[in-house]
Amino acid sequence: STTFDLDSNPHRRLNILTGEWVLVSPHRTKRPWQGKVEDVTADNRPEYDPKCYLCPGNDRADGDVNPDYKESFVFKNDFSALLEDTPAAGMNDDGLLVAQNERGICKVISFSPKHNLTLPELSVSEITAVVDLWQKEFNSLSENEWIKYIQIFENKGEIMGCSNPHPHGQIWSQSEVPMEIVKETERQKNYYAVHRESLLSAYLKIELKKNERIVYENEHFVVLVPFWAVWPYETMIISKRQVNSIKYFNGVEKAALADAIKMLTIKYDNLFETSFPYSAGMHQAPVNGGDHPEWHWHMHFYPPLLRSATVKKFMVGYEMLANPQRDITPEFAANRLKELSTEHYKLKLT
Amino acid sequence: STTFDLDSNPHRRLNILTGEWVLVSPHRTKRPWQGKVEDVTADNRPEYDPKCYLCPGNDRADGDVNPDYKESFVFKNDFSALLEDTPAAGMNDDGLLVAQNERGICKVISFSPKHNLTLPELSVSEITAVVDLWQKEFNSLSENEWIKYIQIFENKGEIMGCSNPHPHGQIWSQSEVPMEIVKETERQKNYYAVHRESLLSAYLKIELKKNERIVYENEHFVVLVPFWAVWPYETMIISKRQVNSIKYFNGVEKAALADAIKMLTIKYDNLFETSFPYSAGMHQAPVNGGDHPEWHWHMHFYPPLLRSATVKKFMVGYEMLANPQRDITPEFAANRLKELSTEHYKLKLT
Ligand SMILES: O=P(O)(O)O[C@H]1O[C@H](CO)[C@@H](O)[C@H](O)[C@H]1O
Ligand SMILES: O=P(O)(O)O[C@H]1O[C@H](CO)[C@@H](O)[C@H](O)[C@H]1O
Repeated sequence: STTFDLDSNPHRRLNILTGEWVLVSPHRTKRPWQGKVEDVTADNRPEYDPKCYLCPGNDRADGDVNPDYKESFVFKNDFSALLEDTPAAGMNDDGLLVAQNERGICKVISFSPKHNLTLPELSVSEITAVVDLWQKEFNSLSENEWIKYIQIFENKGEIMGCSNPHPHGQIWSQSEVPMEIVKETERQKNYYAVHRESLLSAYLKIELKKNERIVYENEHFVVLVPFWAVWPYETMIISKRQVNSIKYFNGVEKAALADAIKMLTIKYDNLFETSFPYSAGMHQAPVNGGDHPEWHWHMHFYPPLLRSATVKKFMVGYEMLANPQRDITPEFAANRLKELSTEHYKLKLT
Repeated sequence: STTFDLDSNPHRRLNILTGEWVLVSPHRTKRPWQGKVEDVTADNRPEYDPKCYLCPGNDRADGDVNPDYKESFVFKNDFSALLEDTPAAGMNDDGLLVAQNERGICKVISFSPKHNLTLPELSVSEITAVVDLWQKEFNSLSENEWIKYIQIFENKGEIMGCSNPHPHGQIWSQSEVPMEIVKETERQKNYYAVHRESLLSAYLKIELKKNERIVYENEHFVVLVPFWAVWPYETMIISKRQVNSIKYFNGVEKAALADAIKMLTIKYDNLFETSFPYSAGMHQAPVNGGDHPEWHWHMHFYPPLLRSATVKKFMVGYEMLANPQRDITPEFAANRLKELSTEHYKLKLT
């Protein structure tokens, strides 16, 4: 029989949350890079920008004026992808052309009145105020019975399609359960039916025991690089207590989540000494459709940078047409992130 | 009852090949864009570049020297993501940490000896030589019984992670069937079992009848924007005759495929008067695992540009965490592409 070497043999790994595979090519980092080099975004923004639609007191596209807010602030997206008043209707031509109207509410949430900050630069208590607002929004949006899922997320950095550097995230809530959540619900349901334990509780146990992919841990949350990570420095925050949504986090847990987010994003910034771009968001149970005892709240971070502040991983040809593929191992990534300081590099510079 | 208006109501559409949905937000193009503006890649390359590893007569990373080739040329990728001699082995910890070695052969195929050309600038007979070589490679790779799938693709343009502008594509062949092909196989099998006709034959009929998403057609191939397109100007080339792989195309069909590729890529370049970036690739039946009478050869083109040569669609936060989303309708995109000339804009400039 032959040996299985995760560090050097090309192999694939199963994403237990979606049932999909990722191809891992550990040896491929030796490849020279002659391709696209990203610009480093200038990092000298003013605390207040009179032209920013998120800064306190400024005008927005719909004619509203932002209040003079002091912590975080939420409002309906002036260019929402989903609309509340879309009529219920659809089409189905022989199962070949199938479409269906979708309703939704899209919101924008400013994380801070200060234009020049990002999550890792906020204090834990300022981030806790953001977590509080996420929870409040989740609770009030789910009071609309027609809403079936609420996606809380952040696009950070120009290369993640973020069109405004003011620290902010989005909340899209909608009348149908989106694809990724359908997949994760099915896998978690199947596991729970057999084991009477959530899939991520079992996974967390094995990860804590092995201690090969853990990046950070506090009393209530674990930050790790999932065994099946697709993006070079992809991570996941998992709650130690199984709850199926942010609704159930108590005050201590909310502060611990804020701490985990701060520590992780500081490590990210320290990795290449740059404001680290990513898309991040929570996955949680659908709402208004039963109990979901199988669902285990977690938060994914999908950052594109691979080698430096300017060289990212491209999920293109093979990845789009066939299968996601990565060039460094999750273990290598976890180790690098784990070793990094939790003091922000900018503090050392000043 | 209410009306269903594909042109103005947010809705979702089913991808019949994968079973996944795409969210369509037709009204969302009004959104102002203050985000990332891509660089336009300089387009004044020499016909021969002494530092290019694809130009005739030049050295490659593995020490080989390229022959003085006159049409197209294929060789093993010097930085292959998959390796031929990976041992069969794997791991499975309680169904939670699951991995498995994967073998493969990765090749690079140069489309032309000329460094400064791209597919739309080659003649139909030069592209036919590329199609011939694809077919030859497909046939010879599938003679390895352990190879189960062969992915032929092209990444074009810096923003698609292409690290060398010399016109070229890749062929990754491997011991497992990748995710996208698993999905498409299942859906095509289910349809074929019920209808005794391929899913794409039925789909092609309805599209030709409706004539709302057809971009170009010749005797043997149809170019259309699929009803469920995710990328702004995504298209698909479908063969009129149902064959399950490139292996079965005869001489006339190969020339017709070359013509379809040329016409489509000229239209793409003409859209924003730029060398249009995309990832493109064929989907076809797995090899060495049965007959696959359900499989219908097709080729996907996934281009990222949305508004101009410098503003692309970002598949980020919501799209990564929840569901792909698009801002213009497939019908709008098909119309624009259909109307565009099949004479390359550069010819008019000179
Ligand atoms: O093989 P190349 O051209 O060096 O690399 C490019 O194509 C590959 C296959 O789609 C991707 O995995 C890489 O991320 C991309 O940069
Ligand atoms: O809503 P924004 O910030 O204008 O837009 C950004 O996030 C959205 C949600 O992930 C994406 O659909 C857009 O492509 C991206 O540019």
